[in-house]
Amino acid sequence: MSIITIATDFGTVDGYAAAVKGVIKSITPEADMVDITHELEGIFKAALVLTRYYSSYPSGTVHLVVVDPTVGSPRSALIGYDGKYHFVGPDNGIFTRIAVGNQESKWWAIDPSRLPSPKSSNTFHGRDIFAPAAALLARGISRDEIGEKIDMPIQIQIPQPMVLDDGVWGEIIDIDRFGNLVTNIGSEIIKDGAAVALEDDVSIGLARTYSDVPKGEPLAYIGSLGYLEIGVNLGRADTYFSVGVGRKVRVIF
Amino acid sequence: MSIITIATDFGTVDGYAAAVKGVIKSITPEADMVDITHELEGIFKAALVLTRYYSSYPSGTVHLVVVDPTVGSPRSALIGYDGKYHFVGPDNGIFTRIAVGNQESKWWAIDPSRLPSPKSSNTFHGRDIFAPAAALLARGISRDEIGEKIDMPIQIQIPQPMVLDDGVWGEIIDIDRFGNLVTNIGSEIIKDGAAVALEDDVSIGLARTYSDVPKGEPLAYIGSLGYLEIGVNLGRADTYFSVGVGRKVRVIF
Amino acid sequence: MSIITIATDFGTVDGYAAAVKGVIKSITPEADMVDITHELEGIFKAALVLTRYYSSYPSGTVHLVVVDPTVGSPRSALIGYDGKYHFVGPDNGIFTRIAVGNQESKWWAIDPSRLPSPKSSNTFHGRDIFAPAAALLARGISRDEIGEKIDMPIQIQIPQPMVLDDGVWGEIIDIDRFGNLVTNIGSEIIKDGAAVALEDDVSIGLARTYSDVPKGEPLAYIGSLGYLEIGVNLGRADTYFSVGVGRKVRVIF
Repeated sequence: MSIITIATDFGTVDGYAAAVKGVIKSITPEADMVDITHELEGIFKAALVLTRYYSSYPSGTVHLVVVDPTVGSPRSALIGYDGKYHFVGPDNGIFTRIAVGNQESKWWAIDPSRLPSPKSSNTFHGRDIFAPAAALLARGISRDEIGEKIDMPIQIQIPQPMVLDDGVWGEIIDIDRFGNLVTNIGSEIIKDGAAVALEDDVSIGLARTYSDVPKGEPLAYIGSLGYLEIGVNLGRADTYFSVGVGRKVRVIF
Repeated sequence: MSIITIATDFGTVDGYAAAVKGVIKSITPEADMVDITHELEGIFKAALVLTRYYSSYPSGTVHLVVVDPTVGSPRSALIGYDGKYHFVGPDNGIFTRIAVGNQESKWWAIDPSRLPSPKSSNTFHGRDIFAPAAALLARGISRDEIGEKIDMPIQIQIPQPMVLDDGVWGEIIDIDRFGNLVTNIGSEIIKDGAAVALEDDVSIGLARTYSDVPKGEPLAYIGSLGYLEIGVNLGRADTYFSVGVGRKVRVIF
Repeated sequence: MSIITIATDFGTVDGYAAAVKGVIKSITPEADMVDITHELEGIFKAALVLTRYYSSYPSGTVHLVVVDPTVGSPRSALIGYDGKYHFVGPDNGIFTRIAVGNQESKWWAIDPSRLPSPKSSNTFHGRDIFAPAAALLARGISRDEIGEKIDMPIQIQIPQPMVLDDGVWGEIIDIDRFGNLVTNIGSEIIKDGAAVALEDDVSIGLARTYSDVPKGEPLAYIGSLGYLEIGVNLGRADTYFSVGVGRKVRVIF
C-alpha cells in the first residue's frame, strides 16, 4: 500500500484536485492518498513547504506537487528519486531544495506517450500526466519505463545567508499562518550570546519557546525545521514588526 | 473497498463534515473516503463541478454531494445510478447534469425509515440520511432496499449555446480559482479560423495553452473539460475583462 | 485498521499538518487518517466542535486535536480515554467538554521520553509528541506505556443556562458557517408554547426547520446537536440580528 501525498494550488472548489485523485484511484485503487494542501502559494513557497513534510513519510512514498503556471509549454514533467522517496511534478523549480546538493537525487523527464492515456489536455497536466505518473510509481512501475533520465531539474534561486563583518546576514524566507518569521539562518550559526535583529533594528532576545517571554513580546528561537525564526508570544510577529518575506535578518555575536 | 467521494458546503471548521465522515466510517469501516471539497458554492456550481471529477473515479464509486439549503422541507433525498457510479444527495438540481440526456441514469427517493438510524434531525440530513445511504451503497446494499424508484430528479436550468446569424452565442458558466472564464461552448463548435469575443468586444485569438501568448495577454482555448475557455497567460481573465458568470461569449466564423 | 481523526489550527499551506500526518504514517502505516479540519479557531470553539463529531466514529477511534498556543510551556500533553475513544492533545482546556461530568473519562500525561523519537522541538509538539502518541494508541500500545495517570485535565469555563423568574437565560456559544446562532440551551428545556428571544427583543417563533418560515424570516429550532438554535430561512441569522457569540438568549414560557 504505497502512499501518494498530494500538494497542489488547485483549491478544492473547482473539482480539479478531485479529478487528480480520481485518476490516481482509477490507476492504482490501493493507493493511500494523503492530502497535503490544495492552496500552495507559488513555486518558491511550494519548494520550501515540501521540505517541511516529505521526510516525515515512510520510505517509498510518492510526493506529488503541482504548481504549474507554465502548463502546456515545453517545460518537462519530472520524476525525481532520492533513494527513499519519489517526487512528481512540473520542471519549474519546485524541486530545487530536493535536488541541490543531494548526490542521491536522480531525475527523469516523463514521456507522456508511455502513460496509460497518452492523450493529454494542454492545460491540466495535473490530471493527465502527473497523476498517472504518480499512480504508476506507487504501484511499483519503474521510473525508466515512463521517463528518460535527465541531469538536473530547473532550479530557482534560494537565498543563502552571508557572513559579514557585522554578523551573519540572512533573510525572512517565509511567514507562516501564525505570523512567525522563518529565516534561512540555520541553527548551527546560533551560539550562546548571539543577538538577532531585523536589519539594524534593536535586537530580539533568543528564547526556547513562545511562552518564555511575556504575552505580546517578541522572541527569536530555533524553529521546528532547525532554522532561526522570530515570533511573538500569543501574537503575530509579521504585524508586530510590519515585515514581509525578503527582509534581512542579522545575527550578531 | 468502495470509494465514497464527499463534496459539501459545510466547510470544515464547524465539525459538520467531520460528523458525516464519522457516520460513514461507523456503518462501513472499510469505505475509502475521498474528500472532494467542503466549500461548494451553491447548487449551480456544484452541478458543474461534479462533472469535472465523477467520471475519473473507478467504477462502483459512490459520489456524495450535499448542498442542501432546503433541508427538512418535502424535497426528496436521492440516490442515482448511471450504470457505473452511484450518486447521493438532496433532490434540488445538483444532479441535473448527470440526469439530463443520460438514458442510463436511474433515480430513487431514499426512504429514511429503512436506514440504520431512522430518527433524523430536521436540519442535518448530510449526517442523518445522505451519509448512511452512501455508506450502505458502498457496502453493496441495493438501491431498492433503501429507496423507491422515481422518474426524474429536480432539474435546474442549464444554459445552452445558440446558433445565430452572427455566430454561436454561449456564456460564461464558471470562473475558476485561477480566473479562467469557462464557457458552455463545446470544442466541437470551434473550428480553424474561428474568433472568440466577449459579446461585441474585440476578438480574442485561439491558442493551445497559456504560454502560447505573451505574459499578461488573453487567449481563448479548449479547456481540460472540452469546453471553450478564456484565460490570460500568467494572469487572471476575470479581472482582465472585468466579467462574471452569465456574460455572453460569441464564436465568429 | 484504527482510525485517527486529525483536527488542528495549522492550516494546510505551511506543511505543518502534512508533517503530522507523515509522522503518523511512519509509525503506524495502516492508520486510517481522517482530516477533520486544519482551521480550528481557538480552544473554546475546538472544544465545542469536538462534541459535534467524536461520537459518530467507530469505537477505538483516536481523536487528535491540536490547538496549542502555549506549546513548549510546562502544560502537559494529554491522552484521554472515555471507554470508547482515545483523545490526544495539549492540556489547555480543549477536552473540557469530554472530561467534565463524564465518570468514564480517564486521563494521562504523556511522557515524551517514552515516545519513539524522544527528542522534541520546543514549538511543534503536534509533530513531535501528539502525532507519535496518537499513532501508538492506534496500533494498540497501552496508554500506561506512554503516559502517567492524572486526575483531571485543565478546564475552560463552559457557560451554562440559568433559570430565572422571567425565563431560562442561555447564550450564543457558536455561530456556524451558515450564520446560524447555536445556543447552550438544551432541547429538554424547550416545551410547546415556549417563545425565544434575543435578550429582551421581540420573540422568535419556534419551528421545525428553515423552510417552515418564509424566505428571509428568522426561526428558532432544535439543532442537530440537540440545542436551541436561531436561523434565517435561506439567509444568515448573524447578520439578520447583528449578533455575535456571548449574546444572551431567553426562553419564555
